[in-house]
Amino acid sequence: MKLKAYLPILDWGSRYNRQTLTSDLVAAIIVTIMLIPQSLAYALLAGLPPEVGLYASVLPLVAYAIFGTSTALAVGPVAVVSLMTATAVGRLAMEGTADYASAAIVLAALSGLILLAMGVFRLGFIANFLSHPVISGFITASGLIIALSQVGGLLGIRTEGHALPGLLTSIVENIGQINWYTVAVGAVALALLLWIRMDLKNWLARFGVPKGVAMVIVRAGPVAVVFLTMAWSVLMDLGAKGVALVGEVPQGLPMLSVPSFSLETVQALLLPALIISIVGFVESISVAQTLAAKRRERIEPNQELIGLGAANIAAAVGGGYPVTGGFARSVVNFDAGAATPAAGAFTAIGIAGATLLLTPFLAILPKATLAATIVLAVLTLVDFSILRKAWTYSRADFTAVAVTLGGTLLLGVETGIAMGVGASILLFLYRSSRPHAAIVGQVPGTEHYRNVKRHKVETLPGVLSIRIDESLYFANARYLEDYVAAQAAQVPGLTDVVLMCSAVNVIDMSALESLEAIQHRLSDMGVRLHLSEVKGPVMDKLAGTAFYAHLDGRVHLSQHQATEAIRQRREQPARDPDQPADAGISLT
Amino acid sequence: MKLKAYLPILDWGSRYNRQTLTSDLVAAIIVTIMLIPQSLAYALLAGLPPEVGLYASVLPLVAYAIFGTSTALAVGPVAVVSLMTATAVGRLAMEGTADYASAAIVLAALSGLILLAMGVFRLGFIANFLSHPVISGFITASGLIIALSQVGGLLGIRTEGHALPGLLTSIVENIGQINWYTVAVGAVALALLLWIRMDLKNWLARFGVPKGVAMVIVRAGPVAVVFLTMAWSVLMDLGAKGVALVGEVPQGLPMLSVPSFSLETVQALLLPALIISIVGFVESISVAQTLAAKRRERIEPNQELIGLGAANIAAAVGGGYPVTGGFARSVVNFDAGAATPAAGAFTAIGIAGATLLLTPFLAILPKATLAATIVLAVLTLVDFSILRKAWTYSRADFTAVAVTLGGTLLLGVETGIAMGVGASILLFLYRSSRPHAAIVGQVPGTEHYRNVKRHKVETLPGVLSIRIDESLYFANARYLEDYVAAQAAQVPGLTDVVLMCSAVNVIDMSALESLEAIQHRLSDMGVRLHLSEVKGPVMDKLAGTAFYAHLDGRVHLSQHQATEAIRQRREQPARDPDQPADAGISLT
Repeated sequence: MKLKAYLPILDWGSRYNRQTLTSDLVAAIIVTIMLIPQSLAYALLAGLPPEVGLYASVLPLVAYAIFGTSTALAVGPVAVVSLMTATAVGRLAMEGTADYASAAIVLAALSGLILLAMGVFRLGFIANFLSHPVISGFITASGLIIALSQVGGLLGIRTEGHALPGLLTSIVENIGQINWYTVAVGAVALALLLWIRMDLKNWLARFGVPKGVAMVIVRAGPVAVVFLTMAWSVLMDLGAKGVALVGEVPQGLPMLSVPSFSLETVQALLLPALIISIVGFVESISVAQTLAAKRRERIEPNQELIGLGAANIAAAVGGGYPVTGGFARSVVNFDAGAATPAAGAFTAIGIAGATLLLTPFLAILPKATLAATIVLAVLTLVDFSILRKAWTYSRADFTAVAVTLGGTLLLGVETGIAMGVGASILLFLYRSSRPHAAIVGQVPGTEHYRNVKRHKVETLPGVLSIRIDESLYFANARYLEDYVAAQAAQVPGLTDVVLMCSAVNVIDMSALESLEAIQHRLSDMGVRLHLSEVKGPVMDKLAGTAFYAHLDGRVHLSQHQATEAIRQRREQPARDPDQPADAGISLT
Repeated sequence: MKLKAYLPILDWGSRYNRQTLTSDLVAAIIVTIMLIPQSLAYALLAGLPPEVGLYASVLPLVAYAIFGTSTALAVGPVAVVSLMTATAVGRLAMEGTADYASAAIVLAALSGLILLAMGVFRLGFIANFLSHPVISGFITASGLIIALSQVGGLLGIRTEGHALPGLLTSIVENIGQINWYTVAVGAVALALLLWIRMDLKNWLARFGVPKGVAMVIVRAGPVAVVFLTMAWSVLMDLGAKGVALVGEVPQGLPMLSVPSFSLETVQALLLPALIISIVGFVESISVAQTLAAKRRERIEPNQELIGLGAANIAAAVGGGYPVTGGFARSVVNFDAGAATPAAGAFTAIGIAGATLLLTPFLAILPKATLAATIVLAVLTLVDFSILRKAWTYSRADFTAVAVTLGGTLLLGVETGIAMGVGASILLFLYRSSRPHAAIVGQVPGTEHYRNVKRHKVETLPGVLSIRIDESLYFANARYLEDYVAAQAAQVPGLTDVVLMCSAVNVIDMSALESLEAIQHRLSDMGVRLHLSEVKGPVMDKLAGTAFYAHLDGRVHLSQHQATEAIRQRREQPARDPDQPADAGISLT
C-alpha cells in the first residue's frame, strides 16, 4: 500500500492489458512525431545544441512513467522553462561552450532534487505563492520574450539578452546584417506551420480523409516541414549562402553520466533552480489536473513533485536540461487516447529511435525552421486579455499581473517572477490588513443583527456591537485595535463593547495580544468587552488564555444573548454585590 | 482643517492654558531627570560618544511636539534602536571615528525620510508585517544581546560583536584582563540602581515622605548614582587605575548641520534604516496607543509616522542618531501628568540645559556606571515567558517566536527580524493554504446544514455540499481544487456539487480561476456546480465574470434553497426542454 503510493507504476502496471497497450502505443506514435521538432527547437531556445532537446525527451519520460500519477501528462522540454534555463545558465557560461551544457545539466539535477525534496517533505504548498495573476503575467511576458528572441533566427542576425530592452537593442543594431535566404526559409516554414495548424485538417476533410488519419497527418506536418527545409538546404546549398544550419552533432544517444557539481555552480544555480522547479510544477500540475478530471481520475500533487523530480534527475543523467509537463503535448497525448503513463515510456523509445535515425541528418537543418517552430508554439502563450480581465475583477489582481508582466519583460524572468510574488503577497496582506467591519444593531422584532448603515436596526445606548468579517491575524490585528478605539471614542456613555466573531475563522497570537490591548484600554475607560458567536475551534484556543481569564465581559453564544445579558444587567443593578450578575453565566 | 491634521500643534496649541502649562512643566522636569543618564548610556550602547545621546534628546522632542499626536509619548534614544544602530553603522566604520558618527547621522536622516514617506503615502500597514510573536522574540533577544554587550563595560574588558557567538567568544578570550576597580564601580552602581528601583519608594514612605516627592526622588536616583560615581572617580583617581572613563567631550550643544550623504553610505544603510524605522514605529505606536486609551484620546498612526519621521530628521540635523518613542519614559511622562506634546518640548529645553551644564564634567564619569544603567534598563525587555505562552497557544506562533529569537541571538538583529517576518508570513500562508472545509448535510426537520462528521444529518444522493471556512485566495485556491476533486471522485452517481460560501469574505482572481477550473472539470464529468450563501460584496464581483456566466448550476441565497432546487429539478425532469428548469430562477 505504502510502496504503491510512491510507485504508482505498481498500481496501474498490475492492471495493464492488451487494450491499454494498444491505446498507449497509438498515443506514443502521435506524440513522438509532435515532439521531435519541438524538442530540437526548445533546446535551441535554451541556448543548447538541438540534440539535447531529444536527449531531454527520453529518460525523463521513462522516469515520469514510473513515479508520476497522471495518465496523460507528457514531460519534456517546454518553452518557458527553456527560456529560464537560458537566462540562468547564460550568466555562468558562454552559449555553445561545454561549460554551458554542463551547467544546464547541473540545473536539471538541482531542480530534480528540489522537486523531490518538496515532494518527500510535502512542501507542494510553496507553489501557492505563484498566484494566477502572477503566472498569467509571467507566461505572457515569457511568450513575448521568446518570440522576440527568435526574430534573430528568422532574419539571420545575432541577438542578445533574455529581456525586452537587450533583445530590441540588439535587433536594431544588427538589422543591417539580414540574410535574405534565411528570411525566405523562415517565412516559408512559418507559413507552412501556420497553414498546417489552421487549415490542414479541414483541407484533408474536404478530400475525404478519415478523421483519425487526418489527425496523424496534422501532427506529422511540422516534421514534414523539417524534412522539406532540410531538402531545400541541401539542394540550394543554403549553408554556403550564409543560412545558419544546425551543423555537426554527436551521433546516437549520449552516455549516461552522473553530473559533476562544483560548489560555485550550485550556489549560482540554486535560486534559478528553485524558481524553475516551482514554475514547472505549477504548469505541470494544472495540466495534469485538468486532464485527470475529464476521466474522473485523481492527481496526487506531492507524488507529482516526486515524478517531476525523478524526471529532472533523469534529464541530468541523460545529458538533457530541465523538463516539465507541457500543455500542448499532454493534450495531444490525452486526445490520442493514452491510457497509462506507459504511453510516455513508449514515446521515450520513439524519441530514442528518432535520435539514432535523425542525428546524422540534423547538420543540414536550417535553424530558421526551428525558430519558426518556436514562434508558432509560443504565440499561444501570449494573452493580454488577462490585463483587461484582472482590471475588471480587482485592482489588486491587476497590479499583480502588471508588476509581473512589466518586471519580466524589462528585467527578465527571475526578477519578474520574484517581483510578482512579492507584489501579490504584499497586496494580499494589505487587503486583509483592512478587513470589512460593521457596527451592528438588532433588526426590530427578530434576533438578527445587521450593519447599522445598511439596515433599519435598533441599538442599546452605550453598547457598541462590532462585527468583523475576517479572520484576525497579525496583518489586521493593529487595524482592529485602531478601529475599536476609534469607534469606542465616538459613543457617548459607552459601557459595553461586543465583538461579533461569526466570520472569524482564526485568531492568531498577534490578534490575541491585540484583543488583550483592546481589553486593557477599554477596561481603563471603564468599559466591558464581550465576544459573541465565537466559533468552536477558535473558542478552544481562547479558553486557555489570560485574555479570556481576565475578560471583563463574557463570551456569548449569540449576539442576541449578548445584548439581552447587557440589558438584564442594567435592569437589575447590583442585586448581590458579592456575586456580580455577570459571573460566568453564559458561555459556549 | 487639513493643515491641523498634519500639524496637531495647531489643535492642542489653540487650547493651551495655564493649567496644561503647569502639568507639562512638572512632567518635563521629571522626564528630564530620568533621561539624562539613559541618553548617555544608550549613546554608548550605539557605539557613539555619550553626549550624542543628549543631542538626540533635544531637537527630536521639539519636532515630535509639533507633528506628533500623542500627549504622553517621549521620544529619544532607546535601547533596541541603539543596538540596531551599532549593528548597522558598525559594518561601515570603526567605533570612535568621525565616519562612525556621521554614518549614524545619515542613518537617522534616512530613517526620518522613510518614516515621513510612509506617513505621507499612508503606508503604516507595512508595520503589520511585524507580528507580535516576531516583536516579542526580537525584543527579548535584543535585550539579552544588549545586557551581554555591557558585561565588558562592567568588567573593564573589551568585547566585540552584536550577536551572542561573537560576544561570548570575546568575553571568554579577554576574561583575563578584568579590572577590579571597574568591577567595583559597576557592582556598586548596579546595586544602587536596583535598590532605587525596587525599594527606595517604600523606604521613603516609611520616613513619611509624601508620594509626589518620593516619585521625584526615585526618578532622580540614577542621576545621583552618576554624580556619586563621578565623585568616586575623582577622589580615588580611578582613571589612573585603569577604569574606563567617558573622557573629554565637546562643550555645549552641537552646531546644526545638514547631513552629507554619500551614495555608498546611503545604499549600505537603506535596508537597516527601513528595519529601524519599522521596529521603532511599532514600539512607539503601541506605547502611544496604550497611553492614549487611558485618557480616551486617539492616536492617528499615519500622523505618528510623520511625527517620528520629523523627530529623526531633527536628530540628524542636531548631531544625534535614530530615535523613537520609548516605553519607560513615556509611562513616566504620562504618570507625571504630561497634558500635551509641549511637555516634550520642555523636556528638550531641560536636556539642552543639562547638556550645557554637564558636558564639562562628563570626562570623569566611569563608563561602568552607564553600563549598569543599560543592564538594568534592558532586563525588563527580556521575557522568555512568550515562548511558553506561544507554545500553549499555537505551534505556528511558537515557531515564529523561536525563529526570531534564535535568529537574532545567533545572527544579529537584522537577519533575526527578517527571518521572523519571513517565517510568520510563510506560516500564515501555509495555514490558510489548508483551510477548514466540511461536507455538510441537512439537520433533519430544520433548514440548518452542518458537518456530516459531527452531526446526524441527511444528504441527497448524488449531491455533494461543501462548506469552506476561509476566504478563497491564491494560497488556498489550488487546495480547493484538490479538495473538491478528491471529494467529487468519492461520491457515486454524482450530479451536483454545492459550495456553501457563508464564511468566504473574499474571492480573489486566483480563486476565481480555480473555481473556473473546478467548474470545467465537473462539467466534463457531467456534474453541475452551484454556489450558496455568497456574501453581497463577493457576489458583486462574481456577477461580472465568465465563471458566473457559464455556471452550469446556480447561485442560491441559502444552502437549503440549493438543496430544494436540486430536489425539485429531479422530481420534474425536463418539463420543457426549451426552458430548462434551472434557468436563472433564484439569485441574490
